[in-house]
Amino acid sequence: MELTERANILVRFNEADPLGIVWHGHYVRYFEDGREAFGEKYGLRYLDIYKYGYTVPVVKVSCDYKRSLRYGDRAIVETRYIDTAAAKIKFEYTLYNAASGEIVAKGSSMQVFLDKETSTLQLTIPPFFEDWKKQWGVL
Amino acid sequence: MELTERANILVRFNEADPLGIVWHGHYVRYFEDGREAFGEKYGLRYLDIYKYGYTVPVVKVSCDYKRSLRYGDRAIVETRYIDTAAAKIKFEYTLYNAASGEIVAKGSSMQVFLDKETSTLQLTIPPFFEDWKKQWGVL
Amino acid sequence: MELTERANILVRFNEADPLGIVWHGHYVRYFEDGREAFGEKYGLRYLDIYKYGYTVPVVKVSCDYKRSLRYGDRAIVETRYIDTAAAKIKFEYTLYNAASGEIVAKGSSMQVFLDKETSTLQLTIPPFFEDWKKQWGVL
Amino acid sequence: MELTERANILVRFNEADPLGIVWHGHYVRYFEDGREAFGEKYGLRYLDIYKYGYTVPVVKVSCDYKRSLRYGDRAIVETRYIDTAAAKIKFEYTLYNAASGEIVAKGSSMQVFLDKETSTLQLTIPPFFEDWKKQWGVL
Repeated sequence: MELTERANILVRFNEADPLGIVWHGHYVRYFEDGREAFGEKYGLRYLDIYKYGYTVPVVKVSCDYKRSLRYGDRAIVETRYIDTAAAKIKFEYTLYNAASGEIVAKGSSMQVFLDKETSTLQLTIPPFFEDWKKQWGVL
Repeated sequence: MELTERANILVRFNEADPLGIVWHGHYVRYFEDGREAFGEKYGLRYLDIYKYGYTVPVVKVSCDYKRSLRYGDRAIVETRYIDTAAAKIKFEYTLYNAASGEIVAKGSSMQVFLDKETSTLQLTIPPFFEDWKKQWGVL
Repeated sequence: MELTERANILVRFNEADPLGIVWHGHYVRYFEDGREAFGEKYGLRYLDIYKYGYTVPVVKVSCDYKRSLRYGDRAIVETRYIDTAAAKIKFEYTLYNAASGEIVAKGSSMQVFLDKETSTLQLTIPPFFEDWKKQWGVL
Repeated sequence: MELTERANILVRFNEADPLGIVWHGHYVRYFEDGREAFGEKYGLRYLDIYKYGYTVPVVKVSCDYKRSLRYGDRAIVETRYIDTAAAKIKFEYTLYNAASGEIVAKGSSMQVFLDKETSTLQLTIPPFFEDWKKQWGVL
């Protein structure tokens, strides 16, 4: 089963740089917007995970820029869960120009689990996330 | 006695908007940079205040824009402490273009004291801040 | 006739500071979100104005913070056009917590008209904006 | 010959998230700070390149996070030029905690050359960049 969610992005004036295009650093924020939309659909928002006793800091992020976005453009971020055997959460992102349908960027992120009280890195998959995987048919 | 501090600001590429000038919202960050530089000089950084048991959220901010800044410009933010009888911290800011010396913007901010544990608003000046005022001759 | 528009704001994780509340500088961005939503409803977006030959830089902004917003909160920004006789555009903003209905912040902004080619300040109201005022019954 | 530059980063209050650590997206900005410091030392700032007739948009960025930074921390970003035979500019970044010397993050970026008037992708290395390579002994 494939777990994905799409979210709308409206490019703000203050996100475009002197060249008139969205500054590349803002895409990391778009990815987080996508991840949160995914989390809302599948019960995996930061707040949900926090309630289970964990924080999930990003330990790796990457982005390939294919086309540019301009102020006023509408984009769609598609967030796809990629299952791994490790105690990690991996997502892949595809950013589309909503008008043309063209791919604007592709990216990925990796998160780990820390105990929210002690900040200890979890080397095995936390029980709540095993349950989550079962619930959504990825285990 | 007048308490002021000057801090350098280098305008980043990612702070300029499609018109090539610094987006107006970033000035609030420049003011905070100025406030922290002031705090470093006079022992009033957020971290110092936190150690005394308080947080000092901003409850009012304003900015008048006189001229624009462009990517690559160097600016100077001058932060001036304005004493008040109330349990508040007031600052005024003057932002200069470092090359021309012209005033770019003027602004102000007001902060209140909250107990860091209970978030209770302090209606009287906290003892540590009375001491601070005495130390710097503003009481 | 009163011209207003309401827009939804979803508080992002990356907008909250170490105290867990939205950093005060982000409200300026929320106001711009409100202004753009207003512009979309009434034909007064930056892009619309640009087509008429003008840019409208913000020359004054202020914000009074009443309550805090936290990551995950939903807010509503209400943007109200305030007519003035001068060659300026004035807006007032009220930010509400969408769940409680409480006022979170109030603010205002003032913009002027510059010729987009020469950056010359317009001392009289541009014809397109006179038309706009007539169209919406504020003249 | 190895071309590198080090720049100081002061972690701002507004860059830390509700967990008290710098939000991961801000590292992309730190990398740009490093790239600009490198550009200042070696004559390769955006403004320099623009004068030669090109813009150099980022087409790929990645970051591996090893440790976290907190508000008040001082960091050092080391930017290293990595020569390639293609019409591209590649940098690698190492972010250190200035106090402990520990590596906080590693990253890289890739930029391409566009004609600044036509936005045409340059498939061969622009003459000015060949000269730059010769000047700095990387060709």
